[in-house]
Amino acid sequence: MMAQSKDPGKDRLWRNARLATLSEGLPGLGIVEKGAVAIRDGRIAYAGPEADLPSSLASLERIDCEGRWITPGLIDCHTHLVHAGNRAHEFELRLAGATYEEVAKAGGGIVSSVKALRAASEEDLLHQTLPRLDALIAEGVTTVEIKSGYGLDLENERKSLKVARLLENERTVTVRTAFLGAHALPPEADGDKQAYIDCVANGMLPVIAAEGLADAVDGFCEGIAFSPDQIAQVFRAAQKHGLPVKLHADQLSNLHGAKLAAEFGALSVDHLEYTDEAGVIAMAKAGTVAVLLPGAFYFIREKQLPPVEELRKHGVRIAIATDSNPGTSPLTSMLLTMNMSATLFRLTVDECIAGVTREAARALGLLAETGTLEAGKWADLAIWNIERPAELVYRMGFNPLHQRIWRGQ
Amino acid sequence: MMAQSKDPGKDRLWRNARLATLSEGLPGLGIVEKGAVAIRDGRIAYAGPEADLPSSLASLERIDCEGRWITPGLIDCHTHLVHAGNRAHEFELRLAGATYEEVAKAGGGIVSSVKALRAASEEDLLHQTLPRLDALIAEGVTTVEIKSGYGLDLENERKSLKVARLLENERTVTVRTAFLGAHALPPEADGDKQAYIDCVANGMLPVIAAEGLADAVDGFCEGIAFSPDQIAQVFRAAQKHGLPVKLHADQLSNLHGAKLAAEFGALSVDHLEYTDEAGVIAMAKAGTVAVLLPGAFYFIREKQLPPVEELRKHGVRIAIATDSNPGTSPLTSMLLTMNMSATLFRLTVDECIAGVTREAARALGLLAETGTLEAGKWADLAIWNIERPAELVYRMGFNPLHQRIWRGQ
Ligand SMILES: [Zn+2]
Ligand SMILES: [Zn+2]
Repeated sequence: MMAQSKDPGKDRLWRNARLATLSEGLPGLGIVEKGAVAIRDGRIAYAGPEADLPSSLASLERIDCEGRWITPGLIDCHTHLVHAGNRAHEFELRLAGATYEEVAKAGGGIVSSVKALRAASEEDLLHQTLPRLDALIAEGVTTVEIKSGYGLDLENERKSLKVARLLENERTVTVRTAFLGAHALPPEADGDKQAYIDCVANGMLPVIAAEGLADAVDGFCEGIAFSPDQIAQVFRAAQKHGLPVKLHADQLSNLHGAKLAAEFGALSVDHLEYTDEAGVIAMAKAGTVAVLLPGAFYFIREKQLPPVEELRKHGVRIAIATDSNPGTSPLTSMLLTMNMSATLFRLTVDECIAGVTREAARALGLLAETGTLEAGKWADLAIWNIERPAELVYRMGFNPLHQRIWRGQ
Repeated sequence: MMAQSKDPGKDRLWRNARLATLSEGLPGLGIVEKGAVAIRDGRIAYAGPEADLPSSLASLERIDCEGRWITPGLIDCHTHLVHAGNRAHEFELRLAGATYEEVAKAGGGIVSSVKALRAASEEDLLHQTLPRLDALIAEGVTTVEIKSGYGLDLENERKSLKVARLLENERTVTVRTAFLGAHALPPEADGDKQAYIDCVANGMLPVIAAEGLADAVDGFCEGIAFSPDQIAQVFRAAQKHGLPVKLHADQLSNLHGAKLAAEFGALSVDHLEYTDEAGVIAMAKAGTVAVLLPGAFYFIREKQLPPVEELRKHGVRIAIATDSNPGTSPLTSMLLTMNMSATLFRLTVDECIAGVTREAARALGLLAETGTLEAGKWADLAIWNIERPAELVYRMGFNPLHQRIWRGQ
């Protein structure tokens, strides 16, 4: 069932290319102007100057890149890609001036996504998700993280995570899953957040961990979602079951979610608009990645910018992601995510490109396997019809992908 | 050379469809739930309820749309699509903190686009433009307006407009051209705006009009470009040569460009961020279309919103367009233009869809030929894999186009 069991791909040499290796041993994007990438058994055997290619690789089938750029395959490290239906009607009502109450009355809000997901079969859900995944893949995405969080009961959270895993059978892509039971309160909980969190931590999480359905445990720490204490309870359960944690934190207010998550050694904290310097320092100390989500910032017209300067000052690594979801970020483009990160958050070109490759891999705990062009890693490549990497960030609504390679295929 | 000479396309009947006809005789999007569109000789022979299909059309080859939505083919009524090179490096420098002076020193700014265009052959320019045009076409665009304005001398303005016309030979698309000699001051003018405008009005415009290269005359009325008096001089020359006018106005300040253009009976006034109510009233009186350009607003991070409420109040028609250009809007997506118009300008779903169809046709003086699904018009259709029209506006970076028909082909 796992992607790893697929065809290992052809051994090949991509030559006459310009490489953005993202190697940490090199400055900036780790650029190699006259570069080559050799692939053997689905892994990178060599990435560097063509002139220094080991002679043992010289006999591989050669492909002339004609000066095109090669980057690591893109990684979308924060999505809610598995969901049912969409919320276009809610969007339309809001533009027409409807209040939140009117939208809720018309069946809008997250509850509508929960209802739709619960009503959908595994098969339905898979087929609704594939076009969104295909949009990401068409822009060179080779790894995608997918969260549950619209099921909100054991059966439906499991269904979501299973469908996320099944996507690896349908497409050449690596999927990492996150169990996000602590996303929102289900309607049947009747407002009792604590009872629901007890169920997430003690009822749902142990089963999901035992079944190997989740690669990490996520939560939403916010006034409209769960308190720091409730999130800590979920995180303690995750640790008990050996699962790393991550958190939606400080998006709409500062509940010090970033600091809390860092104290649990979180892989990443995501959103971060209201995170203060103490939170940033805690993240730096823990090596937690900051995942910025400009699609949601744009779509719900936030005004509070994430603390980019503080993150830089304290050396926190920055990844960026689509947050692809039906309510606040119906976005399925990493290229547009880069443009929004630059335009709205003032990330530099290098930060944007690192944010969808090396840092996104780090945010998923996958840096040993992907995210840079370095020997030993999965042969995940994106080959681009561009003259300089900045074009990937600058253009809006234009896809210059020439070819995508996933684990050598 | 003109598109009109192409294959007239097959006569066909698209049935079992939902239509957004955009017919002015119907409310909202002019929706027909159980609709059919019949095409004969490249024109729409019928668009309406399938039950009312005239028996004379019943024998046409039938295509089952399986409930898909059909809209008019999309129209991008304001682009600078014909240009050479790009300004990704300038974008990168600015994000890295460079000042405007530093960018100019590094060869940035509009002058760099002028130099690149002048250095490019017709063939080069055509091949650089096609991928951008293809991006628009891939989202259902059937008509595109293209301006000159990076040549800034007779030879290079003619080259730009010729290449725009030549695109009709390369793709199934309708091109409308606008002569934008009054876009910026060329470097060789040495700061003498009036002498350059004399040249535009008396030297360039008569030749371009005589050669039939322009369907309209455009200008840029702004402190950094040309004064209202200078624009009026160009407009008088346009009128003398029988060409309709349009204007880039009130984008960065209120020079009362909208009012000026309306007094010349302009087809459209474009940008409009700083237009006051007197300008809006003048546009309403003249029947001038307001063309809003959210891509530029977003990309250069403008804060001043166009006067949408005033436009509605006075009944000015609103179109939206990409403004696709290398300096301030490297955007080649009408779907994203719709999303930005809704998200940033708070246009409704109906306004966004009318803005890329009926009102865009009106802005080009083409409403008799395209922009709605009505008998007699060109058979320009976009067929979509969506459940409701709002999805076209709501999603970001997702293309649900099922099929595009241009004049029956
Ligand atoms: Zn999220
Ligand atoms: Zn323009």
